[in-house]
Amino acid sequence: MTPRARQAIESAEIIVGYDTYLDLIQDLLAGKVTIGTGMMQEVDRCQAAVEQAMTGKQVAVISSGDPGVYGMAGLVLELVGKYPAAVQPEVCVIPGISAVGAAASILGAPLMHDFAVISLSDLLTPWEVIEKRVEMAAAGDFVIAIYNPKSTRRTSQIETVREITLRHRSSDTPVGIVHHATRSKENMTLSTLDRFTKEHIDMFSLVIIGNSQTYIADGKMVTPRGYRL
Amino acid sequence: MTPRARQAIESAEIIVGYDTYLDLIQDLLAGKVTIGTGMMQEVDRCQAAVEQAMTGKQVAVISSGDPGVYGMAGLVLELVGKYPAAVQPEVCVIPGISAVGAAASILGAPLMHDFAVISLSDLLTPWEVIEKRVEMAAAGDFVIAIYNPKSTRRTSQIETVREITLRHRSSDTPVGIVHHATRSKENMTLSTLDRFTKEHIDMFSLVIIGNSQTYIADGKMVTPRGYRL
Repeated sequence: MTPRARQAIESAEIIVGYDTYLDLIQDLLAGKVTIGTGMMQEVDRCQAAVEQAMTGKQVAVISSGDPGVYGMAGLVLELVGKYPAAVQPEVCVIPGISAVGAAASILGAPLMHDFAVISLSDLLTPWEVIEKRVEMAAAGDFVIAIYNPKSTRRTSQIETVREITLRHRSSDTPVGIVHHATRSKENMTLSTLDRFTKEHIDMFSLVIIGNSQTYIADGKMVTPRGYRL
Repeated sequence: MTPRARQAIESAEIIVGYDTYLDLIQDLLAGKVTIGTGMMQEVDRCQAAVEQAMTGKQVAVISSGDPGVYGMAGLVLELVGKYPAAVQPEVCVIPGISAVGAAASILGAPLMHDFAVISLSDLLTPWEVIEKRVEMAAAGDFVIAIYNPKSTRRTSQIETVREITLRHRSSDTPVGIVHHATRSKENMTLSTLDRFTKEHIDMFSLVIIGNSQTYIADGKMVTPRGYRL
Protein backbone atom coordinates (compact mmCIF):
# COMPACT_ATOMS: atom_id res chain seq x y z
CA MET A 1 0.00 0.00 0.00
CA THR A 2 1.40 3.42 -0.90
CA PRO A 3 1.71 6.17 1.73
CA ARG A 4 -0.85 8.15 -0.28
CA ALA A 5 -3.46 5.38 -0.02
CA ARG A 6 -2.76 4.94 3.69
CA GLN A 7 -3.14 8.67 4.27
CA ALA A 8 -6.48 8.70 2.43
CA ILE A 9 -7.78 5.89 4.63
CA GLU A 10 -6.45 7.55 7.78
CA SER A 11 -8.11 10.87 6.98
CA ALA A 12 -11.49 9.35 6.03
CA GLU A 13 -14.38 9.10 8.49
CA ILE A 14 -16.11 6.27 6.63
CA ILE A 15 -14.43 3.28 4.98
CA VAL A 16 -16.37 1.28 2.41
CA GLY A 17 -15.25 -2.05 0.98
CA TYR A 18 -15.69 -5.76 0.57
CA ASP A 19 -15.45 -7.43 4.00
CA THR A 20 -12.31 -9.41 3.12
CA TYR A 21 -10.47 -6.21 2.22
CA LEU A 22 -11.64 -4.44 5.38
CA ASP A 23 -10.17 -7.35 7.37
CA LEU A 24 -6.80 -6.80 5.66
CA ILE A 25 -6.56 -3.21 6.94
CA GLN A 26 -8.10 -3.64 10.39
CA ASP A 27 -5.23 -1.76 12.06
CA LEU A 28 -6.33 1.38 10.17
CA LEU A 29 -10.01 1.20 11.06
CA ALA A 30 -10.09 2.12 14.75
CA GLY A 31 -12.73 4.78 15.43
CA LYS A 32 -14.07 4.76 11.88
CA VAL A 33 -17.45 3.80 10.51
CA THR A 34 -17.15 0.88 8.08
CA ILE A 35 -19.61 -0.19 5.40
CA GLY A 36 -18.83 -3.71 4.30
CA THR A 37 -20.96 -6.17 2.41
CA GLY A 38 -20.50 -9.52 0.72
CA MET A 39 -19.38 -10.15 -2.82
CA MET A 40 -21.80 -9.16 -5.64
CA GLN A 41 -23.12 -6.08 -3.89
CA GLU A 42 -20.68 -3.62 -5.41
CA VAL A 43 -23.35 -1.24 -6.65
CA ASP A 44 -25.13 -0.91 -3.27
CA ARG A 45 -21.82 -0.44 -1.50
CA CYS A 46 -20.58 2.29 -3.82
CA GLN A 47 -24.00 3.98 -3.79
CA ALA A 48 -23.84 4.09 0.02
CA ALA A 49 -20.35 5.61 -0.23
CA VAL A 50 -21.55 8.30 -2.65
CA GLU A 51 -24.54 9.13 -0.44
CA GLN A 52 -22.32 9.54 2.60
CA ALA A 53 -19.95 11.77 0.63
CA MET A 54 -22.94 13.90 -0.50
CA THR A 55 -23.56 14.76 3.16
CA GLY A 56 -20.05 16.22 3.38
CA LYS A 57 -18.37 13.24 4.98
CA GLN A 58 -14.87 12.13 3.94
CA VAL A 59 -15.31 8.62 2.53
CA ALA A 60 -12.71 6.09 1.32
CA VAL A 61 -13.81 3.22 -0.94
CA ILE A 62 -11.14 0.53 -0.86
CA SER A 63 -10.22 -2.01 -3.55
CA SER A 64 -7.54 -4.66 -3.62
CA GLY A 65 -4.90 -4.12 -6.30
CA ASP A 66 -5.40 -0.98 -8.37
CA PRO A 67 -8.90 0.52 -7.96
CA GLY A 68 -8.52 1.79 -11.53
CA VAL A 69 -8.11 -1.70 -13.07
CA TYR A 70 -11.45 -3.57 -12.97
CA GLY A 71 -11.86 -1.91 -9.55
CA MET A 72 -14.30 0.38 -7.81
CA ALA A 73 -13.05 3.68 -9.30
CA GLY A 74 -15.27 3.47 -12.36
CA LEU A 75 -18.40 2.46 -10.49
CA VAL A 76 -18.00 5.34 -8.03
CA LEU A 77 -17.53 7.81 -10.90
CA GLU A 78 -20.53 6.37 -12.75
CA LEU A 79 -22.73 6.74 -9.67
CA VAL A 80 -21.48 10.23 -8.84
CA GLY A 81 -22.18 11.20 -12.45
CA LYS A 82 -25.90 10.58 -11.93
CA TYR A 83 -26.12 13.70 -9.76
CA PRO A 84 -26.00 17.28 -11.07
CA ALA A 85 -22.41 18.57 -11.33
CA ALA A 86 -23.09 21.29 -8.75
CA VAL A 87 -23.79 18.81 -5.93
CA GLN A 88 -21.32 16.07 -6.87
CA PRO A 89 -18.72 15.21 -4.22
CA GLU A 90 -15.11 15.41 -5.37
CA VAL A 91 -13.68 11.99 -6.32
CA CYS A 92 -9.96 11.26 -6.16
CA VAL A 93 -8.67 7.98 -7.60
CA ILE A 94 -5.50 6.80 -5.85
CA PRO A 95 -3.62 4.26 -7.97
CA GLY A 96 -2.32 1.06 -6.40
CA ILE A 97 -0.13 -1.90 -7.28
CA SER A 98 -2.28 -3.77 -9.80
CA ALA A 99 -2.82 -7.52 -9.44
CA VAL A 100 -1.19 -8.01 -12.82
CA GLY A 101 1.88 -6.00 -11.78
CA ALA A 102 2.14 -7.91 -8.50
CA ALA A 103 1.78 -11.26 -10.27
CA ALA A 104 4.38 -10.30 -12.88
CA SER A 105 6.90 -9.37 -10.18
CA ILE A 106 6.60 -12.83 -8.64
CA LEU A 107 7.00 -14.63 -11.98
CA GLY A 108 10.04 -12.59 -13.03
CA ALA A 109 9.58 -10.02 -15.79
CA PRO A 110 6.90 -11.22 -18.22
CA LEU A 111 5.53 -7.71 -18.99
CA MET A 112 8.65 -6.22 -20.57
CA HIS A 113 6.82 -5.95 -23.86
CA ASP A 114 3.32 -5.07 -25.12
CA PHE A 115 0.57 -6.86 -23.22
CA ALA A 116 -3.20 -7.25 -23.15
CA VAL A 117 -5.24 -7.55 -19.96
CA ILE A 118 -8.48 -9.53 -20.27
CA SER A 119 -11.05 -10.61 -17.67
CA LEU A 120 -12.81 -13.88 -18.45
CA SER A 121 -15.76 -13.04 -16.20
CA ASP A 122 -18.89 -13.04 -18.36
CA LEU A 123 -21.16 -11.69 -15.62
CA LEU A 124 -21.03 -8.15 -17.04
CA THR A 125 -19.60 -8.77 -20.52
CA PRO A 126 -20.94 -11.02 -23.31
CA TRP A 127 -18.64 -14.02 -23.88
CA GLU A 128 -18.44 -13.25 -27.62
CA VAL A 129 -16.73 -9.92 -26.82
CA ILE A 130 -14.23 -11.63 -24.51
CA GLU A 131 -13.51 -14.40 -27.02
CA LYS A 132 -12.88 -11.89 -29.81
CA ARG A 133 -10.41 -10.06 -27.57
CA VAL A 134 -8.55 -13.26 -26.77
CA GLU A 135 -8.35 -13.98 -30.51
CA MET A 136 -7.00 -10.50 -31.29
CA ALA A 137 -4.51 -10.56 -28.40
CA ALA A 138 -3.24 -13.98 -29.47
CA ALA A 139 -2.95 -12.92 -33.13
CA GLY A 140 -1.08 -9.73 -32.14
CA ASP A 141 1.52 -11.70 -30.15
CA PHE A 142 0.67 -9.74 -27.02
CA VAL A 143 1.68 -11.13 -23.65
CA ILE A 144 -1.80 -11.93 -22.27
CA ALA A 145 -2.71 -11.36 -18.62
CA ILE A 146 -5.96 -12.98 -17.54
CA TYR A 147 -8.07 -11.84 -14.60
CA ASN A 148 -10.87 -14.08 -13.28
CA PRO A 149 -9.68 -17.10 -15.27
CA LYS A 150 -11.97 -19.66 -13.65
CA SER A 151 -14.51 -20.18 -10.88
CA THR A 152 -16.37 -23.25 -9.61
CA ARG A 153 -19.26 -22.35 -11.92
CA ARG A 154 -17.21 -21.20 -14.89
CA THR A 155 -14.54 -23.63 -16.06
CA SER A 156 -14.64 -23.87 -19.87
CA GLN A 157 -13.46 -20.35 -20.78
CA ILE A 158 -9.83 -20.87 -19.85
CA GLU A 159 -9.80 -24.00 -22.04
CA THR A 160 -11.06 -21.88 -24.93
CA VAL A 161 -8.30 -19.34 -24.28
CA ARG A 162 -5.77 -22.16 -24.48
CA GLU A 163 -7.20 -23.45 -27.76
CA ILE A 164 -7.31 -20.01 -29.38
CA THR A 165 -3.80 -19.09 -28.28
CA LEU A 166 -2.38 -22.46 -29.41
CA ARG A 167 -3.47 -21.56 -32.95
CA HIS A 168 -1.02 -18.62 -32.83
CA ARG A 169 1.81 -19.75 -30.51
CA SER A 170 3.91 -22.82 -29.92
CA SER A 171 2.77 -25.35 -27.34
CA ASP A 172 5.82 -24.69 -25.13
CA THR A 173 5.06 -20.97 -24.73
CA PRO A 174 5.59 -20.18 -21.03
CA VAL A 175 2.54 -19.56 -18.86
CA GLY A 176 2.68 -18.33 -15.27
CA ILE A 177 -0.08 -18.79 -12.71
CA VAL A 178 -0.02 -16.71 -9.53
CA HIS A 179 -2.24 -16.91 -6.45
CA HIS A 180 -2.54 -14.21 -3.79
CA ALA A 181 0.33 -12.15 -5.19
CA THR A 182 2.32 -10.24 -2.51
CA ARG A 183 0.16 -11.67 0.30
CA SER A 184 1.27 -14.26 2.85
CA LYS A 185 -0.42 -17.12 0.94
CA GLU A 186 1.38 -16.12 -2.29
CA ASN A 187 2.43 -18.91 -4.64
CA MET A 188 3.21 -19.35 -8.31
CA THR A 189 3.42 -22.09 -10.91
CA LEU A 190 5.34 -22.01 -14.17
CA SER A 191 3.83 -24.05 -16.97
CA THR A 192 3.37 -24.11 -20.74
CA LEU A 193 0.55 -23.19 -23.08
CA ASP A 194 -0.02 -26.85 -23.81
CA ARG A 195 -0.41 -27.92 -20.17
CA PHE A 196 -1.33 -24.93 -18.00
CA THR A 197 -5.05 -25.65 -17.71
CA LYS A 198 -4.15 -28.87 -15.87
CA GLU A 199 -2.65 -26.76 -13.05
CA HIS A 200 -4.71 -25.46 -10.16
CA ILE A 201 -6.53 -22.31 -11.32
CA ASP A 202 -9.34 -20.62 -9.39
CA MET A 203 -10.94 -17.22 -8.91
CA PHE A 204 -7.89 -16.01 -6.96
CA SER A 205 -5.50 -16.89 -9.80
CA LEU A 206 -3.94 -14.52 -12.27
CA VAL A 207 -2.64 -16.16 -15.45
CA ILE A 208 0.05 -14.64 -17.69
CA ILE A 209 0.65 -16.20 -21.11
CA GLY A 210 3.98 -15.27 -22.68
CA ASN A 211 4.46 -13.92 -26.20
CA SER A 212 6.50 -15.72 -28.89
CA GLN A 213 9.77 -14.47 -27.32
CA THR A 214 9.06 -15.21 -23.64
CA TYR A 215 11.29 -17.79 -21.98
CA ILE A 216 11.78 -19.41 -18.58
CA ALA A 217 15.29 -19.63 -17.13
CA ASP A 218 16.38 -20.37 -13.56
CA GLY A 219 12.75 -20.35 -12.44
CA LYS A 220 11.98 -16.87 -13.81
CA MET A 221 9.61 -16.01 -16.66
CA VAL A 222 11.12 -13.27 -18.83
CA THR A 223 9.85 -11.50 -21.94
CA PRO A 224 12.92 -9.91 -23.54
CA ARG A 225 12.62 -6.23 -24.41
CA GLY A 226 14.84 -6.63 -27.45
CA TYR A 227 18.24 -5.41 -26.27
CA ARG A 228 21.21 -7.07 -27.98
CA LEU A 229 23.17 -8.62 -25.12
CA MET B 1 6.62 4.70 -3.75
CA THR B 2 5.58 1.74 -1.63
CA PRO B 3 7.16 1.12 1.80
CA ARG B 4 8.64 -2.08 0.35
CA ALA B 5 10.46 -0.19 -2.44
CA ARG B 6 11.70 2.41 0.04
CA GLN B 7 12.99 -0.29 2.36
CA ALA B 8 14.85 -1.98 -0.51
CA ILE B 9 16.57 1.29 -1.39
CA GLU B 10 17.36 2.02 2.25
CA SER B 11 18.95 -1.39 2.80
CA ALA B 12 21.02 -1.32 -0.41
CA GLU B 13 24.66 -0.24 -0.48
CA ILE B 14 24.65 0.63 -4.19
CA ILE B 15 21.85 2.38 -6.09
CA VAL B 16 21.80 2.14 -9.88
CA GLY B 17 19.53 4.18 -12.11
CA TYR B 18 19.00 6.80 -14.75
CA ASP B 19 20.30 10.17 -13.40
CA THR B 20 16.85 11.80 -13.48
CA TYR B 21 15.40 9.07 -11.26
CA LEU B 22 18.33 9.25 -8.83
CA ASP B 23 17.60 12.99 -8.49
CA LEU B 24 13.99 12.18 -7.53
CA ILE B 25 15.11 10.11 -4.52
CA GLN B 26 18.09 12.17 -3.37
CA ASP B 27 16.87 12.13 0.23
CA LEU B 28 17.38 8.35 0.29
CA LEU B 29 20.90 8.33 -1.15
CA ALA B 30 23.04 9.71 1.70
CA GLY B 31 26.07 7.50 2.31
CA LYS B 32 25.37 5.23 -0.65
CA VAL B 33 27.32 4.59 -3.83
CA THR B 34 25.30 5.58 -6.90
CA ILE B 35 25.80 4.44 -10.48
CA GLY B 36 23.93 6.76 -12.81
CA THR B 37 24.33 7.20 -16.51
CA GLY B 38 22.49 9.01 -19.28
CA MET B 39 19.60 7.69 -21.32
CA MET B 40 20.35 4.83 -23.79
CA GLN B 41 22.92 3.14 -21.58
CA GLU B 42 20.52 0.76 -19.87
CA VAL B 43 22.56 -2.33 -20.66
CA ASP B 44 25.84 -0.97 -19.26
CA ARG B 45 24.05 0.28 -16.16
CA CYS B 46 22.32 -3.02 -15.42
CA GLN B 47 25.50 -4.97 -16.18
CA ALA B 48 27.35 -2.83 -13.62
CA ALA B 49 24.57 -3.55 -11.11
CA VAL B 50 24.81 -7.29 -11.71
CA GLU B 51 28.61 -7.25 -11.38
CA GLN B 52 28.37 -5.41 -8.06
CA ALA B 53 25.79 -7.91 -6.81
CA MET B 54 28.09 -10.78 -7.85
CA THR B 55 30.65 -9.46 -5.34
CA GLY B 56 28.08 -9.87 -2.56
CA LYS B 57 26.96 -6.26 -2.38
CA GLN B 58 23.28 -5.37 -1.88
CA VAL B 59 22.28 -3.44 -5.02
CA ALA B 60 19.03 -1.66 -5.92
CA VAL B 61 18.27 -0.88 -9.57
CA ILE B 62 15.60 1.80 -9.70
CA SER B 63 12.99 2.45 -12.40
CA SER B 64 10.23 5.01 -12.59
CA GLY B 65 6.72 3.52 -12.64
CA ASP B 66 6.65 -0.27 -12.40
CA PRO B 67 10.07 -1.86 -13.07
CA GLY B 68 8.14 -4.86 -14.42
CA VAL B 69 6.39 -2.89 -17.20
CA TYR B 70 8.91 -1.94 -19.92
CA GLY B 71 11.30 -1.36 -17.00
CA MET B 72 14.66 -2.64 -15.84
CA ALA B 73 13.43 -5.89 -14.24
CA GLY B 74 13.68 -7.89 -17.45
CA LEU B 75 17.09 -6.57 -18.46
CA VAL B 76 18.54 -7.39 -15.02
CA LEU B 77 17.11 -10.93 -15.20
CA GLU B 78 18.42 -11.39 -18.75
CA LEU B 79 21.93 -10.31 -17.70
CA VAL B 80 21.93 -12.40 -14.51
CA GLY B 81 20.82 -15.37 -16.62
CA LYS B 82 24.09 -15.25 -18.56
CA TYR B 83 25.96 -16.52 -15.48
CA PRO B 84 25.83 -20.13 -14.20
CA ALA B 85 22.93 -20.64 -11.78
CA ALA B 86 25.31 -21.45 -8.92
CA VAL B 87 26.89 -17.98 -8.91
CA GLN B 88 23.84 -15.88 -9.82
CA PRO B 89 22.89 -13.22 -7.27
CA GLU B 90 19.28 -13.37 -6.05
CA VAL B 91 16.99 -10.94 -7.89
CA CYS B 92 13.81 -9.59 -6.30
CA VAL B 93 11.41 -7.55 -8.45
CA ILE B 94 9.43 -5.04 -6.37
CA PRO B 95 6.33 -3.89 -8.22
CA GLY B 96 5.44 -0.21 -8.38
CA ILE B 97 2.62 2.05 -9.54
CA SER B 98 2.81 1.71 -13.32
CA ALA B 99 2.76 4.81 -15.51
CA VAL B 100 -0.43 3.55 -17.12
CA GLY B 101 -2.09 3.10 -13.71
CA ALA B 102 -0.98 6.56 -12.59
CA ALA B 103 -2.20 8.15 -15.83
CA ALA B 104 -5.54 6.36 -15.61
CA SER B 105 -6.11 7.62 -12.07
CA ILE B 106 -5.70 11.22 -13.23
CA LEU B 107 -8.06 10.81 -16.18
CA GLY B 108 -10.78 9.11 -14.11
CA ALA B 109 -11.34 5.39 -14.64
CA PRO B 110 -10.56 4.46 -18.26
CA LEU B 111 -9.17 0.97 -17.42
CA MET B 112 -12.33 -0.56 -15.98
CA HIS B 113 -12.44 -3.00 -18.87
CA ASP B 114 -10.00 -5.06 -20.95
CA PHE B 115 -7.04 -3.04 -22.18
CA ALA B 116 -3.91 -3.35 -24.30
CA VAL B 117 -0.61 -1.64 -23.48
CA ILE B 118 1.60 -0.82 -26.48
CA SER B 119 4.89 1.06 -26.76
CA LEU B 120 5.38 2.92 -30.04
CA SER B 121 9.15 3.00 -29.64
CA ASP B 122 10.68 1.19 -32.62
CA LEU B 123 14.24 1.28 -31.26
CA LEU B 124 14.03 -2.33 -30.06
CA THR B 125 10.92 -3.58 -31.91
CA PRO B 126 10.22 -3.63 -35.67
CA TRP B 127 7.47 -1.15 -36.57
CA GLU B 128 5.51 -3.88 -38.40
CA VAL B 129 5.09 -5.77 -35.11
CA ILE B 130 3.86 -2.64 -33.33
CA GLU B 131 1.47 -1.73 -36.15
CA LYS B 132 -0.03 -5.22 -36.16
CA ARG B 133 -0.63 -4.96 -32.42
CA VAL B 134 -2.36 -1.61 -32.80
CA GLU B 135 -4.57 -3.13 -35.50
CA MET B 136 -5.48 -6.13 -33.29
CA ALA B 137 -6.10 -3.97 -30.21
CA ALA B 138 -8.33 -1.62 -32.22
CA ALA B 139 -10.26 -4.52 -33.79
CA GLY B 140 -10.73 -6.16 -30.36
CA ASP B 141 -12.26 -2.98 -28.90
CA PHE B 142 -9.58 -2.89 -26.20
CA VAL B 143 -8.96 0.33 -24.33
CA ILE B 144 -5.48 1.14 -25.71
CA ALA B 145 -2.73 2.62 -23.52
CA ILE B 146 0.26 3.96 -25.43
CA TYR B 147 3.74 4.36 -23.98
CA ASN B 148 6.38 6.39 -25.88
CA PRO B 149 3.80 7.86 -28.27
CA LYS B 150 6.11 10.43 -29.88
CA SER B 151 9.57 11.97 -29.71
CA THR B 152 11.23 14.79 -31.62
CA ARG B 153 12.64 12.24 -34.08
CA ARG B 154 9.59 9.97 -34.22
CA THR B 155 6.32 11.75 -35.01
CA SER B 156 4.40 9.73 -37.62
CA GLN B 157 3.57 6.61 -35.58
CA ILE B 158 0.91 8.22 -33.42
CA GLU B 159 -0.83 9.46 -36.60
CA THR B 160 -0.86 5.88 -37.88
CA VAL B 161 -2.38 4.72 -34.58
CA ARG B 162 -5.13 7.33 -35.02
CA GLU B 163 -5.84 6.21 -38.61
CA ILE B 164 -5.96 2.50 -37.72
CA THR B 165 -8.18 3.03 -34.68
CA LEU B 166 -10.54 5.33 -36.60
CA ARG B 167 -11.29 2.38 -38.91
CA HIS B 168 -12.74 0.54 -35.88
CA ARG B 169 -14.14 3.27 -33.59
CA SER B 170 -16.16 6.45 -33.92
CA SER B 171 -14.32 9.75 -34.30
CA ASP B 172 -15.63 11.05 -30.96
CA THR B 173 -14.11 8.16 -28.95
CA PRO B 174 -12.53 9.76 -25.86
CA VAL B 175 -8.74 9.98 -25.69
CA GLY B 176 -6.81 11.09 -22.62
CA ILE B 177 -3.24 12.43 -22.67
CA VAL B 178 -1.29 12.62 -19.42
CA HIS B 179 2.11 14.14 -18.71
CA HIS B 180 4.24 13.45 -15.63
CA ALA B 181 1.47 11.52 -13.86
CA THR B 182 1.52 11.90 -10.04
CA ARG B 183 4.51 14.26 -10.17
CA SER B 184 4.45 18.00 -9.47
CA LYS B 185 4.35 18.89 -13.19
CA GLU B 186 1.38 16.54 -13.75
CA ASN B 187 -1.21 17.62 -16.31
CA MET B 188 -3.85 15.99 -18.49
CA THR B 189 -5.86 16.73 -21.62
CA LEU B 190 -9.13 15.12 -22.67
CA SER B 191 -9.65 14.89 -26.42
CA THR B 192 -11.21 12.68 -29.08
CA LEU B 193 -9.88 10.08 -31.49
CA ASP B 194 -10.46 12.50 -34.36
CA ARG B 195 -8.45 15.36 -32.86
CA PHE B 196 -6.02 14.07 -30.22
CA THR B 197 -2.87 14.12 -32.36
CA LYS B 198 -3.25 17.92 -32.57
CA GLU B 199 -2.69 18.14 -28.80
CA HIS B 200 0.76 18.38 -27.26
CA ILE B 201 2.26 14.87 -27.12
CA ASP B 202 5.90 14.13 -26.37
CA MET B 203 8.11 11.39 -24.94
CA PHE B 204 6.78 12.08 -21.44
CA SER B 205 3.14 11.60 -22.50
CA LEU B 206 1.00 8.57 -21.91
CA VAL B 207 -2.04 8.30 -24.21
CA ILE B 208 -5.16 6.29 -23.39
CA ILE B 209 -7.71 5.67 -26.17
CA GLY B 210 -11.15 4.62 -24.92
CA ASN B 211 -13.09 1.60 -26.15
CA SER B 212 -16.51 1.85 -27.83
CA GLN B 213 -18.23 2.35 -24.45
CA THR B 214 -15.87 4.92 -22.89
CA TYR B 215 -17.35 8.34 -22.16
CA ILE B 216 -16.33 11.67 -20.68
CA ALA B 217 -18.57 13.32 -18.08
CA ASP B 218 -17.77 16.15 -15.68
CA GLY B 219 -14.14 16.13 -16.81
CA LYS B 220 -13.59 12.43 -16.07
CA MET B 221 -12.91 9.67 -18.62
CA VAL B 222 -14.80 6.52 -17.66
CA THR B 223 -15.01 3.08 -19.28
CA PRO B 224 -18.12 1.44 -17.80
CA ARG B 225 -17.64 -2.04 -16.37
CA GLY B 226 -21.14 -3.06 -17.43
CA TYR B 227 -23.17 -2.75 -14.22
CA ARG B 228 -26.83 -1.89 -14.74
CA LEU B 229 -27.29 1.35 -12.80
